[in-house]
Amino acid sequence: MDIREIRVEDLNVDRFIGEKTKEIASIVGSGTAVNALSGGVDSSAVTMLAHRALGTRVKTYFVENGIMREGEPQRVVSIFEKLGVPVELVDAKEAFFRALRGVTDPELKRQAITDTFYKDVLARLVRSSGARHLLHGTNYTDVEETVAGIKRQHNILEQLRIDTQKEYGYKVIEPLIELRKTGVRMVAKALGLPKEIYDRPPFPGPALAARVIGEVTSERVEIVRKATKIVEEELAASNAFQYLAVLHEDRVTGIRGGKREFGSQIGVRCFDSTDAVTATPTRLPFETLERLGQRIPAEVHGVVSVTYNVTRKPPTTIEAV
Amino acid sequence: MDIREIRVEDLNVDRFIGEKTKEIASIVGSGTAVNALSGGVDSSAVTMLAHRALGTRVKTYFVENGIMREGEPQRVVSIFEKLGVPVELVDAKEAFFRALRGVTDPELKRQAITDTFYKDVLARLVRSSGARHLLHGTNYTDVEETVAGIKRQHNILEQLRIDTQKEYGYKVIEPLIELRKTGVRMVAKALGLPKEIYDRPPFPGPALAARVIGEVTSERVEIVRKATKIVEEELAASNAFQYLAVLHEDRVTGIRGGKREFGSQIGVRCFDSTDAVTATPTRLPFETLERLGQRIPAEVHGVVSVTYNVTRKPPTTIEAV
Repeated sequence: MDIREIRVEDLNVDRFIGEKTKEIASIVGSGTAVNALSGGVDSSAVTMLAHRALGTRVKTYFVENGIMREGEPQRVVSIFEKLGVPVELVDAKEAFFRALRGVTDPELKRQAITDTFYKDVLARLVRSSGARHLLHGTNYTDVEETVAGIKRQHNILEQLRIDTQKEYGYKVIEPLIELRKTGVRMVAKALGLPKEIYDRPPFPGPALAARVIGEVTSERVEIVRKATKIVEEELAASNAFQYLAVLHEDRVTGIRGGKREFGSQIGVRCFDSTDAVTATPTRLPFETLERLGQRIPAEVHGVVSVTYNVTRKPPTTIEAV
Repeated sequence: MDIREIRVEDLNVDRFIGEKTKEIASIVGSGTAVNALSGGVDSSAVTMLAHRALGTRVKTYFVENGIMREGEPQRVVSIFEKLGVPVELVDAKEAFFRALRGVTDPELKRQAITDTFYKDVLARLVRSSGARHLLHGTNYTDVEETVAGIKRQHNILEQLRIDTQKEYGYKVIEPLIELRKTGVRMVAKALGLPKEIYDRPPFPGPALAARVIGEVTSERVEIVRKATKIVEEELAASNAFQYLAVLHEDRVTGIRGGKREFGSQIGVRCFDSTDAVTATPTRLPFETLERLGQRIPAEVHGVVSVTYNVTRKPPTTIEAV
């Protein structure tokens, strides 16, 4: 690959922001651009850069795909409203669940989500807006992992030699592609984004679909959404790099009210890491683990068992799917 | 149910042994009996009682079903040889794997194992020996859980109104049916069994088949057998009530040698309990959990992730399947 990484020690944040703002302005020229905001640190930083570079000539959308965390769409839109950046919420839930129906292979799930996002929803938004460019928050680790064949990242297109102009009708601008997460966080902070954005634990492109083993239905997403909320509440103070809940397809035996209940299992994962390339399970206090083991079956319908991952990356990965 | 529990505080071990020995002798009369030894505390205690009551008129078999732990059959036979109790090893692996082929439902697995054991293997052994009675290590908790519909125990027959005389051609004698595990351990100790038997953590009737989610094949049993060996090595010093490894059917993403490996997950469970009715996840040191998380993927082919169960019984159960 011919993209050069900018290491954190070589990153001059202000100069980077200045250059990228100019670059975006020059590429888009007198046209308009579309920007998709997910609320992650990458797309949030891109949103701010695009807003600086293009002002009202960039239209930012938040695509509600049905696989977000609880309250996520409203929360993100309101953060950006406060920063003076208008964001339009697009309800595309049905399109995503339709594309995910019956799909169990993780790569095909990612593919279904990517295709729905780019070919269906965004292509429609770009076409109807008359824009020729789409801004996107691809970072250096995304490129690297995709090239290495570890995991197909949601937001890699041109790296896979996909001609977006031909396939989707727009060109993609990726201003963060030389930075890893730490660099992106520095840029996001300098762009005036609040701590809950620039310091937010990473969240995968395929969102809660990456947290469901087996078919992704709105019912199964709802289970993992509730478990995720509990995990995030309990582990917010852990200072861990990333924490998450996975819904298994496997059923395990449980017992409730003295009767057998063949139920679901939630896998909790929490890692210490600096770069996501290697990661160690966080040594959480046993009280916290027990609280998770108790709260999730008590509060999430059908769950009878909770586990905690104790294997490092490698050989495991941070996300299970 | 009309069986009365003998509580530990009411148990006079010597009197119990004397009475049961007489009872067995009187039921079998001048005939012969067959006894199946699994190496668990229940069947071991029954073996000793039967040997005392009947001497050479009881024939003890150890049925190798292919779903035992590593080295288990040889180990058990040699313990009893030292105690002067002859045990015949019967290789029935093929019959069990044939019966388990394609079966994924836990209850149907138990059923397949029970049927193969009683209707196929034991019925044949009893018939060929001319015996009219089979001794069995059913205990009070087995009866209770089966009646409550929590879990179909492997060794419950007459409680389910199965006429063993009619169905299998023999009558069942269950000398331990009034005792819970603690009482059985006391009896086993008094009968001269070594600590590794009377103090052995419980092991389920369906053996490693209860540790495999999904289809039970010899290959999948081999994975969980290796993981079980590591778990037992690492947790032997934990003083826990029971510890085990479960092989998931779900696949999770891993990474090895820089490449994605879509691999297996092993769930480790370890509980503190006194009666198996309620149980709490043992607060293992994090070093131990990390060693399990490292050793299992390193030593067992295809495993990329290890988890630890953090939910109590109830709502989870000690065994997952």
